[in-house]
Amino acid sequence: MKGVIRKITQDEVIDLTHSIHPQNVFEGAFLLHSAYRYFPAGTIFISVVDPGVGGDRAAIVIKTENYWFVCPDNGIAFPSAVEDGIRKILRIKESVSQFSGAFSSTFHGRDIFAPAGALIREGRMEHFERFKGEPVKLDLFDARVEGGRIVGRVVHIDRFGNAVTNITRNQIEEYSVTGFMYRGHEIPLVEKYEDVERGKPLAIIGSFNTLELSLREDNFSRHFNVDFGNIELGWI
Amino acid sequence: MKGVIRKITQDEVIDLTHSIHPQNVFEGAFLLHSAYRYFPAGTIFISVVDPGVGGDRAAIVIKTENYWFVCPDNGIAFPSAVEDGIRKILRIKESVSQFSGAFSSTFHGRDIFAPAGALIREGRMEHFERFKGEPVKLDLFDARVEGGRIVGRVVHIDRFGNAVTNITRNQIEEYSVTGFMYRGHEIPLVEKYEDVERGKPLAIIGSFNTLELSLREDNFSRHFNVDFGNIELGWI
Amino acid sequence: MKGVIRKITQDEVIDLTHSIHPQNVFEGAFLLHSAYRYFPAGTIFISVVDPGVGGDRAAIVIKTENYWFVCPDNGIAFPSAVEDGIRKILRIKESVSQFSGAFSSTFHGRDIFAPAGALIREGRMEHFERFKGEPVKLDLFDARVEGGRIVGRVVHIDRFGNAVTNITRNQIEEYSVTGFMYRGHEIPLVEKYEDVERGKPLAIIGSFNTLELSLREDNFSRHFNVDFGNIELGWI
Repeated sequence: MKGVIRKITQDEVIDLTHSIHPQNVFEGAFLLHSAYRYFPAGTIFISVVDPGVGGDRAAIVIKTENYWFVCPDNGIAFPSAVEDGIRKILRIKESVSQFSGAFSSTFHGRDIFAPAGALIREGRMEHFERFKGEPVKLDLFDARVEGGRIVGRVVHIDRFGNAVTNITRNQIEEYSVTGFMYRGHEIPLVEKYEDVERGKPLAIIGSFNTLELSLREDNFSRHFNVDFGNIELGWI
Repeated sequence: MKGVIRKITQDEVIDLTHSIHPQNVFEGAFLLHSAYRYFPAGTIFISVVDPGVGGDRAAIVIKTENYWFVCPDNGIAFPSAVEDGIRKILRIKESVSQFSGAFSSTFHGRDIFAPAGALIREGRMEHFERFKGEPVKLDLFDARVEGGRIVGRVVHIDRFGNAVTNITRNQIEEYSVTGFMYRGHEIPLVEKYEDVERGKPLAIIGSFNTLELSLREDNFSRHFNVDFGNIELGWI
Repeated sequence: MKGVIRKITQDEVIDLTHSIHPQNVFEGAFLLHSAYRYFPAGTIFISVVDPGVGGDRAAIVIKTENYWFVCPDNGIAFPSAVEDGIRKILRIKESVSQFSGAFSSTFHGRDIFAPAGALIREGRMEHFERFKGEPVKLDLFDARVEGGRIVGRVVHIDRFGNAVTNITRNQIEEYSVTGFMYRGHEIPLVEKYEDVERGKPLAIIGSFNTLELSLREDNFSRHFNVDFGNIELGWI
């Protein structure tokens, strides 16, 4: 992808992350949403988690107040774009694939999205047309309180094994909660890792501004065999 | 390696991949061959998969029509260089190691190849001499049809678990084949992942323009316990 | 982190490594010490392995003869800084977090250290003050000879499975040793990998200028189930 970009534009390319789990559009959308605002205005995000590659899903560009998002139309950039303010949505023409000199049905990152991003930077907008119809929507923050518990999702497992949820700081602060019950374990809600002993579980509002479950200096997700998807926590 | 390069030249450094499996020269040669042509003319590829580090293999530079390949003489850049057209082959003098300030017998990437690449960019050709003899050759595309089956190689397993072979599009298209038999399983040859149900196996001409075996939205290589090396497929 | 840096400065950002094992300050200190000197004078190293994030440990900057080290005060940059010559130590003011627009208790890499590094590059020193007190010290090279054996540490396990120790070339050369005994196995000390057969163990002075234990073209650490921490070797 970088080679294709370099042939079209000299502008800088930054790797945001290569650690999204295969085909996990929700995780990709979450990480993009948590990172995009730290980048300078005008940044073009080429965001490709694409289980439908080669199929019917459209290849689009969303122009927002401050950024460009180049992506498959599967919702990956939708939460970020809505938050920043959508101005217009374009469809990428297949003519962009001439710039990679190839057109595979398995790697549109290289053949469609990389050249599209570079062409935008160069202002060559003849390779884009108006997108008709509605983009695929995706709701990142669908955690909900039910009786004495909260049902959210594990949306990311980082390399330290922290289980990052989509339960927001606001949802936590609305209740005067001191911790959670998870599979029979009490997990205190703390301000910093050092508030519990090494090897003990803790819950903390992390850098995504959502609830994370951790084992201090150890791997929570491996220890509790946690995977992506729904998670239920009792209030304490 | 990047620090050593930065001390010699200000030119941009791009990471092509860090995901080649240890000591797998064939995989490195395949990935380089599939990627080099997407880069601008004049690119210098520092290509180091080097099980013979510290031993007798030469450290060379191959100048081709459009590129420079800096590498151990073990065949890693040979298929790419032949395809682009070899103009001349140089031997790297040991004097380049003065630029890293070190000379280990285990990390010539840092001590030999990184400074050599940067010195070429700066035109300091006094650190190179004519290479006498023949470079090590390597044949990437040695798959062959035998009776009712094709014998090729798994040359790369990507992070999604797709088993990428060296069986080319041309070899497939020469026969009117609709799929393959693999260890008693029928695997249809399809145009896109969505042509089979989730979790089902499929064969597809992938982004390397060769045959790949996949499980839709799952990990083929883990599921079938596939490793590098020979693979036999029956025709259907 | 890169987004935050880009908002403050246009200077180039290089990834040194992302492969330090979670929370392993000693490994981080070792890899930084082995790499820093290959970078141009003036380089700013943002070095964050930070098990105490959110706690009491200070966030500091060490200015040395040639470099800047931006890091938590847990010893990670101390050996490098001492070697290059410490000129002054500053404390990072919390005001730097205004540049990330966030202040989490779990990700000071993004909220403290990345903006601090970028601000130094721009000369905006009003965000730093004198550090009072002593920085945390860390001794990388604490291997010692005891009778007929040497007791060191495995400080890094690389992606090839080589077990890199902190036993230095000098410590080895002081004795006329031809190999080591490790868990009942004889491991010869060699000059290059090819000095033993494939699959056989060997000891070699590696690119860190310390002793490494390897299996030729195989994974030593997996095979011998080696982990970080103390290692005892008999002399042969």
